[in-house]
Amino acid sequence: MSKVSVNPTRGMRDILPEEVAKRNLALSSIRSVYRSYGFEEIETPIVESLPLLGSGGGGENEKLIFKILKRGEKLQEAVEGGALEDLLAESGLRFDLTVPLGRFYAANHHRLPRPFKSCQIGNVFRAERPQKGRYRQFLQVDIDVLGDEGPQAEVDLLSAATSALHKIGLEGFETRINDRRILEDLAEKFGFSAPTHKQLFISLDKLDKVDSQAVLEELVTRGFDRVAAGEFLSVLTKFATETDSLAALAELSVPTEHLERLLWVKEALSQSVEGSSDVLIDPLVIRGMSYYTSSVFEISHPKWGTSIAGGGRYDDMLERYQVASPACGISLGFERIMGLLAEMKVARSSEVSKTTVIYDPIDQLRVASETASKIRESGGVASLQMRAKNLGSQIKRLEAEALQRRSEGSKDRFYIWIVGRQGPEEIATEAK
Amino acid sequence: MSKVSVNPTRGMRDILPEEVAKRNLALSSIRSVYRSYGFEEIETPIVESLPLLGSGGGGENEKLIFKILKRGEKLQEAVEGGALEDLLAESGLRFDLTVPLGRFYAANHHRLPRPFKSCQIGNVFRAERPQKGRYRQFLQVDIDVLGDEGPQAEVDLLSAATSALHKIGLEGFETRINDRRILEDLAEKFGFSAPTHKQLFISLDKLDKVDSQAVLEELVTRGFDRVAAGEFLSVLTKFATETDSLAALAELSVPTEHLERLLWVKEALSQSVEGSSDVLIDPLVIRGMSYYTSSVFEISHPKWGTSIAGGGRYDDMLERYQVASPACGISLGFERIMGLLAEMKVARSSEVSKTTVIYDPIDQLRVASETASKIRESGGVASLQMRAKNLGSQIKRLEAEALQRRSEGSKDRFYIWIVGRQGPEEIATEAK
Repeated sequence: MSKVSVNPTRGMRDILPEEVAKRNLALSSIRSVYRSYGFEEIETPIVESLPLLGSGGGGENEKLIFKILKRGEKLQEAVEGGALEDLLAESGLRFDLTVPLGRFYAANHHRLPRPFKSCQIGNVFRAERPQKGRYRQFLQVDIDVLGDEGPQAEVDLLSAATSALHKIGLEGFETRINDRRILEDLAEKFGFSAPTHKQLFISLDKLDKVDSQAVLEELVTRGFDRVAAGEFLSVLTKFATETDSLAALAELSVPTEHLERLLWVKEALSQSVEGSSDVLIDPLVIRGMSYYTSSVFEISHPKWGTSIAGGGRYDDMLERYQVASPACGISLGFERIMGLLAEMKVARSSEVSKTTVIYDPIDQLRVASETASKIRESGGVASLQMRAKNLGSQIKRLEAEALQRRSEGSKDRFYIWIVGRQGPEEIATEAK
Repeated sequence: MSKVSVNPTRGMRDILPEEVAKRNLALSSIRSVYRSYGFEEIETPIVESLPLLGSGGGGENEKLIFKILKRGEKLQEAVEGGALEDLLAESGLRFDLTVPLGRFYAANHHRLPRPFKSCQIGNVFRAERPQKGRYRQFLQVDIDVLGDEGPQAEVDLLSAATSALHKIGLEGFETRINDRRILEDLAEKFGFSAPTHKQLFISLDKLDKVDSQAVLEELVTRGFDRVAAGEFLSVLTKFATETDSLAALAELSVPTEHLERLLWVKEALSQSVEGSSDVLIDPLVIRGMSYYTSSVFEISHPKWGTSIAGGGRYDDMLERYQVASPACGISLGFERIMGLLAEMKVARSSEVSKTTVIYDPIDQLRVASETASKIRESGGVASLQMRAKNLGSQIKRLEAEALQRRSEGSKDRFYIWIVGRQGPEEIATEAK
């Protein structure tokens, strides 16, 4: 038999019990908060058709799709046709939860309330170059409001998300909100026409990494007028720190309605008792996904370089599936959040009493079973183990395992009981 | 823009909120029972390498693997080599949770206790012909004991599984246990050599669907001796109903140790206070998977044609991954169980109060936010909705949606509050 590698396949990973317990605890907190806000959980399949995956404006992510090979006759035909990648595959693994949600809503909207507030927890897949802490399969937790064009949707999403982050023990993050249309109006004002906006915004998106001079040089290299671009950048950076930004826009005779909407969202968020977070209006929040149309937002934490949650409004996506409807969502970067919790040492784990009941299978079965049942009924964990020939080393191994769990951060309490002549007895161990 | 189908891709399905809620409730019950027995949850990736997926004795299921197409240069090379399916793919979607568990244990056993009692909840994928109630992606819930060769493993698995089934409201099922070695010893006794056993057992497996005469004819067609096969079948069917089967075996001078082990398991299960179920020793329980080596078992319910849980011992699998270790597991057919619960109308759903708070965004934001917060804090679900221009039709729509949920079996209570001059007021609705 040839040797088979037992490592997870490239870019994938195993998750061990201690970590699964922490993840489940965090997920159950997030779930309960999201539910209390009226978001309802749905499930979509992990596999979608390639036309669907390519239809939603997933941008760069569409290049990272894991494609599923055709089978049988279909494959034979494709190969004989001398065909390449797209002809060999017809379905693939989802790269986000938003494109499948669009399809789900289009397929099922007649059975759903309006607005529909959805919650999705699921793995997504991207064939990226694996790096430390970056896997090709990762969990996303999304909430979305479908069918509400008003700013209540943004408020619901941001207030539920910050509330969920608080619930799992995260503090000190900030929420930045923007409306891409403000930036578009400003760009028009400085003479940049709509077709150049995409390139303009890609360069502006770098302002959180490099200074405005570097961005200006990049814009000039890409053919933008130096004077206009310089004035635009100077207004933008001033605007970002300007307290009375509404007046600043009016002074430039740029429409103020989109900013007024943002100000209402900010006001509403400050009224929301749960999940308070610093809320900033930041015209430089752009977000990469090309399906966003207006509102965009992200939640970040000073301890973490990138954002831990992000989202926006994608009012045009559903039209592609013949069900025009406004839509808005936010996605929690669950892997990053778990990493942040671990770094801040606030990741809570369960605190359970775990008892191993050692017994003699010849005549102690009933007593051992009853003991285990009682422990389980009272909320504890009980494992039965037959008495080994060498009882001493059996106990030593149990102790060593408990100590290892402790060293991995477990807060569980470990007990060993031995069924003896007088019934079950707890023995003293070092691992409690 | 070309029209994109919004149906789930072939053999896949969407799961709507009402059903997700029921599934989550059942899963959380099963999880808590499994945890109380000391099973610890792990996660393995959905994607595994093809050599791994093909290494574990998955039998027929290996033909149903969804293969993931190679990408970029690797694909180019494969196609230029004039290569077919296996050369175009190097990874695929898991078809069960057992093969990945074997790999997981081999990769991580040095960090795990011994025995390791694992719990895995995850989707598996099989490219089968889609049928009613049979999907290409479905959820399995597995528990396994790795590193224990004794019968305590079988007792733990069966008692935890029946206990979990009780917890979610299922009653009246029966557990049938067997040891393939008993059948092998008996077959030897009647002159059938080991190489013929596989074919013999495939025919015997049909005894629950056709009568023993039909099975005899099939055996004869396949070249088995009519007289020996007839006697074998008559002993087998008698043995299945024989109360003193131990004496029956002894009388035939067939070794009794495997049966004695089964009798101990049966005795131990009857001692287990939780999850009592009728336990039968049935020499005709064989199970399809070729990786099983000795114990095999299934749990079935008279209302359902096939079994709802099945498993067995696969002591040889881990040797293939260079970590020889006894192993035993049971898998709950979660989709079948949910179907059975629905049919028996015992599927419990949550009973939550769901309130929509309607408010005027101009001056009622604070009152509405506070009202929603209070409802959420007291365990209810609150959604804010801005007052529509036509309040009457806004209320009618909310009522209609609540009535539809009721008709789908929801036990939630629906309320509508309207923020008025005197603060929030509940309005009378028909949908409570």
